[in-house]
Amino acid sequence: MSEPLTDTDAHWWSRPGLQYVAGALVFAGCDVAAFARGRRTPFYLYDVDRVIDRYAALRGALAPHGVPTSIAYAMKANRHPAILSQLLARTDAGVDVCSPNELDLALSLGFTERDITYTGTSLSERDMHALAARPEVRVNLDALSGVRRFSALCPSRAIGVRIDPGVGMAYREGLEYAGRLVKFGVHRADWPALERLAAERGLAVRTVHCHAGSGFLTEQLARLPAVLAEVGAFLDRFPAVDTVNLGGGLGVPQREGERPLDLDAWARIVTAFARHRGVRLAFEPGDFLVKDAGVLVSLVTTVEAKRGHRFVGLDVGMNVNNEFAYYEMNLEPVPVRAMGHDGWVPTILAGNINEPIDVFCHERSLPPLDEGDLVALLNAGGYGASSASNHCMRGDFREYALLARPHRASPPLLERTLP
Amino acid sequence: MSEPLTDTDAHWWSRPGLQYVAGALVFAGCDVAAFARGRRTPFYLYDVDRVIDRYAALRGALAPHGVPTSIAYAMKANRHPAILSQLLARTDAGVDVCSPNELDLALSLGFTERDITYTGTSLSERDMHALAARPEVRVNLDALSGVRRFSALCPSRAIGVRIDPGVGMAYREGLEYAGRLVKFGVHRADWPALERLAAERGLAVRTVHCHAGSGFLTEQLARLPAVLAEVGAFLDRFPAVDTVNLGGGLGVPQREGERPLDLDAWARIVTAFARHRGVRLAFEPGDFLVKDAGVLVSLVTTVEAKRGHRFVGLDVGMNVNNEFAYYEMNLEPVPVRAMGHDGWVPTILAGNINEPIDVFCHERSLPPLDEGDLVALLNAGGYGASSASNHCMRGDFREYALLARPHRASPPLLERTLP
Repeated sequence: MSEPLTDTDAHWWSRPGLQYVAGALVFAGCDVAAFARGRRTPFYLYDVDRVIDRYAALRGALAPHGVPTSIAYAMKANRHPAILSQLLARTDAGVDVCSPNELDLALSLGFTERDITYTGTSLSERDMHALAARPEVRVNLDALSGVRRFSALCPSRAIGVRIDPGVGMAYREGLEYAGRLVKFGVHRADWPALERLAAERGLAVRTVHCHAGSGFLTEQLARLPAVLAEVGAFLDRFPAVDTVNLGGGLGVPQREGERPLDLDAWARIVTAFARHRGVRLAFEPGDFLVKDAGVLVSLVTTVEAKRGHRFVGLDVGMNVNNEFAYYEMNLEPVPVRAMGHDGWVPTILAGNINEPIDVFCHERSLPPLDEGDLVALLNAGGYGASSASNHCMRGDFREYALLARPHRASPPLLERTLP
Repeated sequence: MSEPLTDTDAHWWSRPGLQYVAGALVFAGCDVAAFARGRRTPFYLYDVDRVIDRYAALRGALAPHGVPTSIAYAMKANRHPAILSQLLARTDAGVDVCSPNELDLALSLGFTERDITYTGTSLSERDMHALAARPEVRVNLDALSGVRRFSALCPSRAIGVRIDPGVGMAYREGLEYAGRLVKFGVHRADWPALERLAAERGLAVRTVHCHAGSGFLTEQLARLPAVLAEVGAFLDRFPAVDTVNLGGGLGVPQREGERPLDLDAWARIVTAFARHRGVRLAFEPGDFLVKDAGVLVSLVTTVEAKRGHRFVGLDVGMNVNNEFAYYEMNLEPVPVRAMGHDGWVPTILAGNINEPIDVFCHERSLPPLDEGDLVALLNAGGYGASSASNHCMRGDFREYALLARPHRASPPLLERTLP
């Protein structure tokens, strides 16, 4: 037996609110193993205060520069109502939606039309009519077709136009939104057609929208000036634009060795641009607010030595969280009881779906997990539950929102059971 | 204007029951455009009689060889209740399930325990107890851990053991279940451990299960003997095994130029093996029965010239069918009104989800679709609806089962609305 890790042992993912305390993984003030007792796995835990803190950090990085800025949370990342409602109650965040159903959900929770941006793609006539009925929602259109049809329906309404900046800045190629032939945004080659359309119809293009990729960290900031140059070129052609919406894409470290995004460096770049051009800023962060505010807790069902390789099976699969299976995004696996330094072996963490790609990591060194152990998969707060399916009818999971409740005596828990 | 295609123009996908008739796409006796009138897109249409016919073809290919054979439909491919119920009513098919919820659904529709095989992975204790409560279900276990735990719970119950044949036969590498380090099945290197476990506990290993890949066609049959040799080696070591379950994986042509699986050639190989070894056969086809029995009908929302490239947007996305976005499986796009030979251009068919990979094809030659046109995506019957998610809250779709109803006068339609 090796010594259990002490609470001060460094883990790259440790932070106040996510760490071992006396050998027990604590998340948002909650002993995960104790919480799991009597509860069915798998389940997501969300640290709502972490979401609020991340929002405050973003606001805090932008504030000193004095540029008017609005931030709308991209709810497609995680639409748990506690996250949405707490953001509404405790911050000035708006919400970014991409479908009429997301719009309805935001309104049903108390957001008003003016809090909402709609940045969708492939908008149908039905989508257009849903937006026409909500005149205060700020709509960003990502194609000439959308501009043409929406302006026919709502002739005098101010609009945003999403451009394709022709350069991407995601943390890896597959998630870049631009720089390849992608479906989003009006490319510079097609701005003359937009100008003609705008002149013919007297369009009020007030916002230029540009989302250049998903998950950028400090290293990718070097490409931000090229993105902004493209935005600037659009501003030159459309001088009535008063708002630059740079979308989301701010990243979160997912692996040992990755450094957090330098928010101050990022804020300096974007606010300098905005001041220089005399525009307001807008952002639509998703993962940045919620990714590391969620963990997915699962039970080890199976430990198998196969051809000399170690497979550890979980009671959760790619249908509940597809980030690794489809995107190779790391959900850091962490035992809920601290394990020592000994016995770590290369391990394949496998899910319970009948597909060969249903794994949560290929061979990587993990502690000696046993059947019946609980594992927390970190960084599971974004694009997990919101994209989950019932594939193999393995879609049963729960989501629990944890939050400090200074005004209340009862335990910090909002519970919701998904259908 | 070019001449519209005549009904006898060859399309690689045409067949009785799926063809243009007087310029209208007819599927399962139903004019798709007429059917869509007054209905909300997107929707799936299922040709239930096609499923029954495919089942009959499989039975017919095996019958002349006189080997006792059971066939269980792998419901993970498509669990629409009309498909399951009609298979039960009109064939001798059983059903293969991979989770307790699938088991419950099968039983709720009238299948009995003896009709059901359970071939799951990463079985939890909860899964094991669900199976213990259903003593007649035939369970195939894919790991020593599962054998050990299940035999402790149900000591005298006959079991099947899934092996890893060490050779794959999918139509492309990513879908091979074996030949790489995959999670499924007990590998030959670990059979001695299984033998020891079987001897210690007096296990009744009655079935050897082996699923070597997904979507094989005639070309891949050359690898079947190597798979069967591995099965034979298992039979040598476990002489009490009386059933060989070869899983599913029988493929369906997805692209022009692909030839249907030569069922007779396949049947000769597997039945010769079974006769030689004196065993029964079992199969678990999924896609083979349902893939080409389903189409996904969607509306063209957006036609966009971007950087000189043609993008056609649909009112459906990768969350409703992920076969192309994640697996590069072709869902052949076909206009519901026949279009002429002119004006075909390289086209990117894009979905309405805010992800760059949300497309249904990269640039390929398609007819000149207009906004408002309906497109049928063929070969959408398997792993579409059953794996769908509500990503971006774009998960609204319908499923309609079409079938000939010789005993009835009313139109051929069973309708179900998904939550």
